Parts: sequence; C-alpha cells; structure tokens
Amino acid sequence: MSETSQLACVFAPVLTPFRDDYSCNRELFVNFCLWLHAQGVGLAIFGTNSEANSLTLEERLELLGALIEAGVPPSALLPGTGACAMGDSVRLTTAAVKAGCSGVLMLPPFYYKPVSDDGLFAAYSEVIERVGDSRFKMLLYHIPQVSGVPLSLELIGRLVERYPKTVIGMKDSSGDLNNTKSVIERFRGFKVYAGSDALLLATMRYGGAGCISATANVNPAAIVRLRRNWMEEGAEAAQAGLVQIRRIFESFPMIAALKAAAAHYGRTKSFAVVRPPLLRLTEEQRGKLLEALEKSKFAMPELERALAR
Amino acid sequence: MSETSQLACVFAPVLTPFRDDYSCNRELFVNFCLWLHAQGVGLAIFGTNSEANSLTLEERLELLGALIEAGVPPSALLPGTGACAMGDSVRLTTAAVKAGCSGVLMLPPFYYKPVSDDGLFAAYSEVIERVGDSRFKMLLYHIPQVSGVPLSLELIGRLVERYPKTVIGMKDSSGDLNNTKSVIERFRGFKVYAGSDALLLATMRYGGAGCISATANVNPAAIVRLRRNWMEEGAEAAQAGLVQIRRIFESFPMIAALKAAAAHYGRTKSFAVVRPPLLRLTEEQRGKLLEALEKSKFAMPELERALAR
Repeated sequence: MSETSQLACVFAPVLTPFRDDYSCNRELFVNFCLWLHAQGVGLAIFGTNSEANSLTLEERLELLGALIEAGVPPSALLPGTGACAMGDSVRLTTAAVKAGCSGVLMLPPFYYKPVSDDGLFAAYSEVIERVGDSRFKMLLYHIPQVSGVPLSLELIGRLVERYPKTVIGMKDSSGDLNNTKSVIERFRGFKVYAGSDALLLATMRYGGAGCISATANVNPAAIVRLRRNWMEEGAEAAQAGLVQIRRIFESFPMIAALKAAAAHYGRTKSFAVVRPPLLRLTEEQRGKLLEALEKSKFAMPELERALAR
Repeated sequence: MSETSQLACVFAPVLTPFRDDYSCNRELFVNFCLWLHAQGVGLAIFGTNSEANSLTLEERLELLGALIEAGVPPSALLPGTGACAMGDSVRLTTAAVKAGCSGVLMLPPFYYKPVSDDGLFAAYSEVIERVGDSRFKMLLYHIPQVSGVPLSLELIGRLVERYPKTVIGMKDSSGDLNNTKSVIERFRGFKVYAGSDALLLATMRYGGAGCISATANVNPAAIVRLRRNWMEEGAEAAQAGLVQIRRIFESFPMIAALKAAAAHYGRTKSFAVVRPPLLRLTEEQRGKLLEALEKSKFAMPELERALAR
C-alpha cells in the first residue's frame, strides 16, 4: 500500500443531520464535516451510516456541493456513489470526480439478488466507462449483510485486472477477518479498509490501509491515533480502548445511537433525528447510552463550538 | 373483495424496453403497454420485472408521462412507487395519483435490514401523509426474497387500521400460500394479489383478488381467462396450462427470458436488452427457450403489429 496516495487512512461514514421535519440540515452537515476534518479523519459522506440511501440523488448532490462551497478540501472526501440505478451512480460519481474528491466508495446495485459475478462486473464496468475520467478512483464496498450482494474474490480480481487505475481498494464491512486477509493477500497494493475500528489493528497487521468506521463519527481522534501508532507499543491497549467505546454504541441501534451522542455532546437536539425506516433512540435507550458514555469518560471535544458556527 | 373497484384483477409487471445503449425505449414501452392493455391486463409498471429500481426517478416519471400522453387510461395503471428514499417515493406516488392511476404498488424502503415494524410503519405513514391525497390507493408489496424486508401481519394490520382508505391490498410475492391465506383471512375486504399466475387459482379459492404476475407480460389473455372463469369447470386444467408456460420461463433468468420472448415474437431485437446487474440470455439459452415455447404452441398474438406502430 502506497502511503503517497491522497486517500486518508481513517474515514468517518459521516452522519447526515436532519431537521425535525426530516429535511437535510445543510449547515449542520457542513459544520460537522469541518469538525471531523479538524479531528483528522477523512469524510466518507453518503455511506450506510450516513443514511445515504434514504437521501434522494438531488439531496446528495446538494450536500456534496455545500461542502465544496464551504471550503472542505475535496481531497478529504470519499463519497458513497453506488445506487441501484446505473444512471444515478454515474451522475453522482461524475459530480464527485469533477469536484476533485480523492475517491468514491461504491456499493453494487442492491435490489436484485442473487446476481452473478458477470452481472456485477457489467454493472461496475458500465459506471466506470460512463464516468470515463482517469482521475476516478474507486473503493469497492462489501457489506453483504445489508446490501444482500456480496463481492466475491473472483469479481474483485476481474475488476482490478480490467481497471487497475480505477479500482484501487475495498471497504470490507463483512466483519469477516478471513475475507479481509484473503483480499489483502491476493491483491498486492490494493487498499483494504476495515469496516469497523474494532478490526483496525488486525487489518493493519495483515497489510490493510486503515478503516472506515461508524464510530469515527464520535471518536475520531483516538482511531486516527491507533492508525498512526499501530506498530508501537501500546497498540493493543489502544485497540481495546476503541472496542470499549464501540461496544457501547453497538448495544443500541448504531446509527440512532451515534446521532444521539452527536446531539448530546454537540448540544443540537435535532441531530438525533433519523429518517424512517430507522428510528431514533427511545428516551430510555438515550439515558442508558449517555450514562455508559459518561462512565467511560467519553468526549467529543469542541463539537459544541464547531456545530454552533 | 369488491368487484366495483377500479383495480384490475390481473396485472402485468410491465417489462421496460431499452435500446442497445441501455437508454429507455419510450415508444416501444408505450406500444407494449397498449398491447398488454388490449389483451385485458392491468399495467403494473415499475415493478421488479420492470427493472424499476434500475431506472432513475426521472426515467420513471418520464415513462409514466409518456403513457398518459399516449392515451393509456390511467385507471389501468398500478405503478410501483416504493423507493429507499422517502422523497423519491413521495414524488413518484404524487405523480401517479395526480395522473389518476387506480393505485400504486409500494415496496418498503429496502436498503436497511433488519428493520422494525415500527420503522416500517413510520416509513409508510410518512409517505401516505406527505402525498396527502384521498384518491391515493396503495397495495403493499411483500417480496422478502428480493427486498430483504418482509411485511409482517402485524405491520399490515397497523397500516390497514390507521389508513383503511389508502392501504387497500397487497401483492404477495413470497410464494408462500400460507402467508397469502393468513392475510386474506385476517383482513376482510383487503385485496390480495398472488405474485405468480401459478398461484392464481389457489389464491382465488382463498378469497384473493387476482394476480400480478411476470408471465402476464407474455401470456396475458390466458391468465385473464382463468381469473374470469376460476369457478367454472376446467379451471384446474387452465391453471395447469399456465403453470406449464411459466415453468419454461422459470427455467431461465426470468426477466431476461421474458424480454427474449417479447423480442422474438415482437420482432424487435433490442427488446432483449436488460440493464446490469441483470444479463440477457446467452444465445444457447435463447435457443432453448424458443424451442420449448414453440413446442408448447406459445404465441404473443398481434405483438409484432403492436410494436411496429
């Protein structure tokens, strides 16, 4: 893995703040991104934790534009651009590439299942050919438990062989370390990101690139620190610390819990809103979450000031 | 089930014709819809077999508009309008209701899984409230093997209770007749459509409304005939005849096979095009399909003339 690449090593799949009427809160989104960026993580906007598929294409295009306009460096951005409809993927990816984003994270089309490797190869190829831009860098997004569409080693191999300058890596959200290891071993130079900070150290030891992790929305600095110091003494303790925080969030519906924490520590109540079919935490869940976080001396430093800008 | 409803009893989930470059073939779509309508079936455009989720929202809005412009009676239309993003569902549903469609068929948001009944209730409610039109009639779309999001009896019950004038029925594509039977027995007056013509007779005997079946794209008249005569002598033989034709299509990737048949009998080669991640039949598959259809004396009467208009 080349360290000279523009791609960050730790990304937050950025939470998308809504208002009480479920509309996108553009200002809060920009300010939250600026805070995350200042904490040292890359911005994987429009991921699963961003509720990206609950956003219309227009909403995604507008939020991307808002970040660029606000001066967020495009090199920090890794938007999710995979959609069921090829036309949507092409349009959003083209916007991302033209804006100068360092890459995109691409779900396969996720309505039909099962689909063949030939069909998935055709789907990815068609998007790559239509975007037709040599600056286009893509991470494949493997999250079979949600998408219902796994990306096989054979498919990855065919894509890497055909588009070596575009298909440069993968996010493995399967949680299956054996799969992560297989991909890293089989495709030298391929940038493989763990889908969870709990697997960051193991992934780095296998030769991975870093992680794109839900909890990087709330605990970014500590994750970046482990990524930087993973070969130092104390890495295992640091990993254990990350796991401890992650477990707290995992014991609730994850996206709602992350948003509840952002709302609380950012003193911005509406940040807790999620779009259906997701539900925000109940008051009881919220109480338990915050209690567990307080006990862990959890903090989101400067968030309140950042969001109030 | 009231026979006075505007809703047809047999619907084709209408195939969407593309050109070789994957763009929508609007003229062919209109002509194919006119042919299906003349054969006596309702038009469930934008269903699973329509590759609806491989179409952008703009493409769906444009095709709907094209049908209305061409004089297809809106009362014959049952567009699929469920999407992952609430905003997309609302926009397409509103267009359908304003156009005078007799109803819509609505997938749940299908990216996140598992999701709770409370979350699905919130998702459907939000769309219903935002469309906010008393003419809005909805069939729920239960197709868990594809959507990954089953609709439970409890959820259906809550929706029917809260929105009795809107949530008037369901398409059960689970293939599980026990489920079909349970829904029919539990919700009197609810219109339940089988997701396959192979289950039409059984569904009618349980008290169902009809079927919305892939093969109604290629074998519409015979399916309508069984629906009309299901209580007559000879219904079982007619059902066996439908199953025989269906089995032929089912022994290939279904959507590609239906399109290959439409292309062949309509003498319109490009009708065979499917969008990735689906793949068209290989030449070998196509040969086998057509051979089996010829042996069964299969026909799509007048299709060639209809498509050439």
